[in-house]
Parts: sequence; C-alpha cells; structure tokens
Amino acid sequence: MPALFYCAVKYCPVCGHPTSAHIPPGDNRVRDCCPQCGAVHYVNPRPVVGTIPLWGTQILMCKRAIEPGRGKWTLPAGFMEVGETTGNGAMRETLEEAGARVTLGPLFSMIDVPHVQQVHIFFQAKLLDADFRAGEESLEVRLFDEADVPWEEIAFRTVSTTLKLYFRDRANGQIGTHTCAIEVIAPTVAVTGA
Amino acid sequence: MPALFYCAVKYCPVCGHPTSAHIPPGDNRVRDCCPQCGAVHYVNPRPVVGTIPLWGTQILMCKRAIEPGRGKWTLPAGFMEVGETTGNGAMRETLEEAGARVTLGPLFSMIDVPHVQQVHIFFQAKLLDADFRAGEESLEVRLFDEADVPWEEIAFRTVSTTLKLYFRDRANGQIGTHTCAIEVIAPTVAVTGA
Repeated sequence: MPALFYCAVKYCPVCGHPTSAHIPPGDNRVRDCCPQCGAVHYVNPRPVVGTIPLWGTQILMCKRAIEPGRGKWTLPAGFMEVGETTGNGAMRETLEEAGARVTLGPLFSMIDVPHVQQVHIFFQAKLLDADFRAGEESLEVRLFDEADVPWEEIAFRTVSTTLKLYFRDRANGQIGTHTCAIEVIAPTVAVTGA
Repeated sequence: MPALFYCAVKYCPVCGHPTSAHIPPGDNRVRDCCPQCGAVHYVNPRPVVGTIPLWGTQILMCKRAIEPGRGKWTLPAGFMEVGETTGNGAMRETLEEAGARVTLGPLFSMIDVPHVQQVHIFFQAKLLDADFRAGEESLEVRLFDEADVPWEEIAFRTVSTTLKLYFRDRANGQIGTHTCAIEVIAPTVAVTGA
C-alpha cells in the first residue's frame, strides 16, 4: 500500500486558475470550483484492493519496505488504478508486492477507513505455485501458519481485522463476506458490521 | 448519481504549475507530476454507493431528474464523499434522492465499471416508513412490485444487474453478496463473478 497522498485542489487541474471553495449549483457541499473554466473538482474516497493469498492453510504476507508501516507485515494490497476492476487490481498488487500469481476467490472483506478517505477491499485467493518473492515495496515475503501470524507487527488495522475475521470464519467452517469500519480514535479495532 | 466528472491533471492542484507526465521513482505507471513542488497526482476509481430500499416486498426506485439517464429509473445511489463510510454514504444518498430513511442491511453487490473508473456498491436496506418524496435529483419516487419494475427504462446497468441478482436470490430463498463487472463493449450485462 502506498502512502496516503491527499491534497485540496487549490489550483484548477484543467486550466491552472486558483479555485474558489463554494457550493456549486444543485449540490449541497463545498467543492473546489474554478471561476475561470467552470470545472468542479470533486474529491472522493479511494479503493484499496488486495488479497488473502492462501497456500494450503498458510497465508502469504509481505514485510513492508516503505512507509507507512515500514518493517511491519501486511497482506498484498494497494490503490486501485483507473481502467481495472477491483479483482484485477487485487491480483496485480499481489504480483507486484509478493511476486505471486493467484486465482481469485470471492470478496472477503470491505472495510471503511473514513479518516483517510479509503475503502479497503480484500478477496480470497489461492497461490498458483510457491514461487513468490519480495517486490520493490516489500523487504520479505513469507507464508504464515495461523499460529505464527505476527499480530503485534501488522502494518494496518484493516489487515489485522481481515485476518481475524478470516481465521474465525475458517474455524467455524464457513467463509463469509464482511463489511466493517475502522474508527479513528479507538486504539483497538472496531468491527461495526458483519 | 451525478454525472461523471473526470479530467487529467494538467496543472498542479497544489501550486498551479503545469504538470509533467512521467513515471515517478518507485512507481511503474505514468502519473501527472509537478516539476515545481514535487507532488504526484494519482487518479483512482471512485466508489458509488446506494441501497436497495425495501418496503415489504416492494422496492423504492427514483426517476432521474438529471443526466445521465434523465427520465429513467434507478436505485438511490451516488458518489461516496470523503469522511463517510460506504454504508453512511448509501443512507445519505437514499435520503437525498428519495427522501427515505432506512436501516441498512448487508452488502448486496459490488460491481466494477472500469470504463468510467467507478465501483458501484449496493446495500440491502429497509424503509423505516412509507414517507418518501423526490429529492432534487429525482422527478418521481415510487415503490415497485417485482412484476412492475420498468426493466426497459433503467438508467444504469449496475442497477438492473443488482435488481436481477436480488430477485433471483429472493426467489431462491437466500440473499447473498455479489461481485461482478460491467463490460464496456457488450450491449448486455456481463456478470463475471458471484
């Protein structure tokens, strides 16, 4: 997952004129609007897409080489790119960060992270082979048994939440689809949905 | 759902300098980069969030007052705003477009629309009362029995796909969660996942 890069639209990306913050006609929120060319510059949350890559009962995780969370562990995931689907993006990130080829399974979790304007989406996936390697954004990539998951060294709460839900479902013999939200204040993970 | 508003970042939104399209260090795609302030301007797909608002077995739909799809029918939905969750956004859009208050149910569909850089996300929902009315973006709001749904006059393929999947699930006695993608070329709906 790359670092958050969020900025207000102070200058019009279309024509370069300074923008004016006001509510455009027919809208009900303040937007950055261009008084020169008329463009309205909406800012919306961004999807982050990734996988739970399985090799038998083991899960492939990546040790991050970059901030945020450098040196901590994550599932392969990153910002969805234009022109791709959520599933294709999740497979692309798995290949880029973990050098791993997967077949995609069902959607597993969709987790809102409103304080950073993101929605994190994880799919179940199966490794096609055990031929994986750390990509540029990873220091190390390895398979973990459930008992060995480094819970205290996980980079993102969406990842620890997804893994906890996955292991719970697996223990119960039924893998579902989960939606929840990560709260900004609480130091613990808050699962507000199911 | 508001009209698509997508543009390249020709001028830096941070400092107003003309951008330069190249692959930034550590990346593997061309981005609009600012040679003056160093900002990299990523463009990502945007989530559209909405509901399937139920009143008994009937579904609340909105006749659109604006383009795209003016005069056609839709489920209440629109672009997710920063600072909200997918579920809160879906309830907000239901209130804004249909004047309807709902309790939110589980995620029902997540449909990729890669040619317009969107992901459409629909939740099941139950109307709290039958007190609804057309919002600014709607000409009319009404409840439909399944048999009366105006299939030939639906504004978006993500909506017709969601409704078809919903009625199919309901007939089968089990409402699930569905992911699929809308293809750009094919004139028919392509459901590529489950």
